[in-house]
Amino acid sequence: MAPPDSEASRRRSLIIVSNRGPVTYDRDASGERIERRGGGGLVTALRGLLEHHDVTWIASATTEEDRVVAGEGGGDVVLVAHDAAAYEGYYNVIANPLLWFVQHSLYGLASEPDVDRAMHGAWRDGYAVVNRAFADAVVAELDNKPDATVFFHDYHLYLAPRMVRELRPDARLAHFVHIPWPEDWSALPPAMRDAITDGLLANDVVAFHTERWARNFTAGAGALGRTTVVHHPISIDVGEFDELAASDGVRRREEQLWPGRPEKLVVRVDRTDPSKNIVRGFRAFGLLLEEHREWRGRVSMLALLDPSRQSIPVYADYLATIERVASAVNERFGEEGWRPVELRVADDFLQSVAAYKQYDVLLVNPVYDGLNLVAKEGPLVNLRAGVLVLSENAGAYEELSSWAVGVNPFDLAGQADALHEALSMGEAERQARAEGLREHVRMNDVRQWIEALLADFDQAAARDYGVSARR
Amino acid sequence: MAPPDSEASRRRSLIIVSNRGPVTYDRDASGERIERRGGGGLVTALRGLLEHHDVTWIASATTEEDRVVAGEGGGDVVLVAHDAAAYEGYYNVIANPLLWFVQHSLYGLASEPDVDRAMHGAWRDGYAVVNRAFADAVVAELDNKPDATVFFHDYHLYLAPRMVRELRPDARLAHFVHIPWPEDWSALPPAMRDAITDGLLANDVVAFHTERWARNFTAGAGALGRTTVVHHPISIDVGEFDELAASDGVRRREEQLWPGRPEKLVVRVDRTDPSKNIVRGFRAFGLLLEEHREWRGRVSMLALLDPSRQSIPVYADYLATIERVASAVNERFGEEGWRPVELRVADDFLQSVAAYKQYDVLLVNPVYDGLNLVAKEGPLVNLRAGVLVLSENAGAYEELSSWAVGVNPFDLAGQADALHEALSMGEAERQARAEGLREHVRMNDVRQWIEALLADFDQAAARDYGVSARR
Repeated sequence: MAPPDSEASRRRSLIIVSNRGPVTYDRDASGERIERRGGGGLVTALRGLLEHHDVTWIASATTEEDRVVAGEGGGDVVLVAHDAAAYEGYYNVIANPLLWFVQHSLYGLASEPDVDRAMHGAWRDGYAVVNRAFADAVVAELDNKPDATVFFHDYHLYLAPRMVRELRPDARLAHFVHIPWPEDWSALPPAMRDAITDGLLANDVVAFHTERWARNFTAGAGALGRTTVVHHPISIDVGEFDELAASDGVRRREEQLWPGRPEKLVVRVDRTDPSKNIVRGFRAFGLLLEEHREWRGRVSMLALLDPSRQSIPVYADYLATIERVASAVNERFGEEGWRPVELRVADDFLQSVAAYKQYDVLLVNPVYDGLNLVAKEGPLVNLRAGVLVLSENAGAYEELSSWAVGVNPFDLAGQADALHEALSMGEAERQARAEGLREHVRMNDVRQWIEALLADFDQAAARDYGVSARR
Repeated sequence: MAPPDSEASRRRSLIIVSNRGPVTYDRDASGERIERRGGGGLVTALRGLLEHHDVTWIASATTEEDRVVAGEGGGDVVLVAHDAAAYEGYYNVIANPLLWFVQHSLYGLASEPDVDRAMHGAWRDGYAVVNRAFADAVVAELDNKPDATVFFHDYHLYLAPRMVRELRPDARLAHFVHIPWPEDWSALPPAMRDAITDGLLANDVVAFHTERWARNFTAGAGALGRTTVVHHPISIDVGEFDELAASDGVRRREEQLWPGRPEKLVVRVDRTDPSKNIVRGFRAFGLLLEEHREWRGRVSMLALLDPSRQSIPVYADYLATIERVASAVNERFGEEGWRPVELRVADDFLQSVAAYKQYDVLLVNPVYDGLNLVAKEGPLVNLRAGVLVLSENAGAYEELSSWAVGVNPFDLAGQADALHEALSMGEAERQARAEGLREHVRMNDVRQWIEALLADFDQAAARDYGVSARR
């Protein structure tokens, strides 16, 4: 960690822009305003910035009370109130599922997507309108803090940087894309994909979690102009996570996790998103039980799944398939006193941390994933020298592959083999791998990620200054 | 065309290797052997080689009588008789659908493919075994013709070149891949995709139809070693096609094509393959009729579809969807005396050529397509200054885009707009574009393609000679 007076930790002026903000407001039963901390890895990761720097955070107003706060103005958190129809098109038609599906390569192109008039309308009257509202809020904030670096986040805000750049040619703009950047964008009409690339290229710095996503972006973008493309994998707050794992709340969950647990536990922790590949995971586990009778009665899979986006039909269908396939494995292989698959669909992070501590194998097999923090959180706190089975399409694979058992997410047979390998691995090798993972996460916590990005912003600013001075 | 005594047309020794051969054998009712010319663009394109060069053609025996011929040996066509189970895995599990679907980006990765034990088995005991049989046949033929260039074709034979190279290090090997080469191969387990790349890199020359596919291959292949990667778009035999278009057979089909035809005809000619995007084409036509009432009663879509691979469930389902969506458009918009969509499912090439002559708009909107010869055949013989509406994901788009109306194949609204633009286009512009297309095809017929490839083979051989001489 850098000493507090170093250049890296010099106090900076920042404007963070993301769809979800660090707080959201509501009213309690007595009509008093209450403030809730926003969840999610991004907010957790960026919260550290608020302590050391002069940060304004611009986000969407998502509750009624947020809209009241938005109207009051002022403060370090600026909430932007959007037109409801525009927000619907922006969020539920374009960002999710269109951009999410394209960037995670989830579409079967023979029949999806259908870019119809409604989708074109949602792009024009929703996605572009909400991006414009964000851009206007950024420009207003830049009038207060003209030297601030604007730090955009993710696939909701691809158009805003160009809109800001046109109004403030000298602004310092950066963008972090937290999801995969695929090689093939042809599922989108040229006008959309060109606008997305053009919007990102209005930034001085465009950042991804991995070299792979950064390379795909660079290969497709053509001339980069002023933009520097970098990659820094996000991480977790190691100290905070260690404390959480040692907390009473997690200890209680650990005691209740699985009374009379089987000899071995395969754990997975995911949102119920098709990109997470939960169904193939169950089927691979079923194949393991079919082919390796010796594991029957001795190993179970514990799947802790946070229900996600259930208002979108494909997500509701996916959860139904998850439940059906888990039941099918249990019906086929289950015995008195042994349940092969235990499926728990709930938003219960403390239980997930309890399971992290107790796994023998952690299965992280996404179709595609920008990074995947489960692959870092689990190994940090696991107590059983558990083995990480990790998809080659998770961003975290770039960092962690030498200590993980790698799998191709479409290879059912390969995943069954990997589970067997992980369950059979000798103590010494398990210890060495688990230690390697833990040390890597410990040495690369979220502060390194932030410091690396701030250094990139400084370099871009210095380069701009150099360019200006030569004029 | 090169004069007959030029270097380019010097008589060469060639061994062509493809799954389907130029002839297939059967017995007639009296028990006499009969010989049938193989169909398909590839066989037609390569047949020209047989007249001018010393060609042996190695292909799979596909009929009982082929197997008898295979046992007899000798001749310019060598038929390889495969084990039936191996061939089933090679052809119906790996080549179609797995490789076809991966290379046309047709899988929705959330649920497909499932690379299960059966698929791994089909790879090992089918695809590799059949490739080995082809490699053995090539090596035997090289013993007769040691200076021959071996010319492999397509996605059925990715492993054979490496197998030949290991036995005959100095052989001259070339491979033409006739389907798209996608950027993302991660749907295949690493061992399969690495073997495919390694197999192709055993060739001196690897060829594609377009710069785009060649670039994707080069980007993914790593070090190319001895391999030169080239791109030459295949074409048609212009003289033969002109003759066909003027033939009595085609004239008769023209008369019967659509008695009392509507003012404007939108024609499409395709196999019923999900990659051809037939369903979105009908839906885009429906959207045109919904939004532009002025075309109702005046324009119809004539879809001439060759039923394809109906033993594969996804292909049978696709044809059923085609029929359902065509009916839905007719039910919604049809009127007394005007049928919006005319669907003809049959293998009738003469009728297709008749329709080529008569279209006002030719719709070629594939999801992905290696090249697409319809986009060349139609404009060559069309008599109405018809307009080509062409997918940006068809290989032919690289050559023809300046004269076509381009569409993104997933953009329903954009395809409806393109149909309207094409139907509304003024006579002068239609003439200019049609003339541009016709001249391009006329000046770039299949002989140019063959000559370009032969020149590449010569260069590779000269380079090898240079390398040998320096040793």
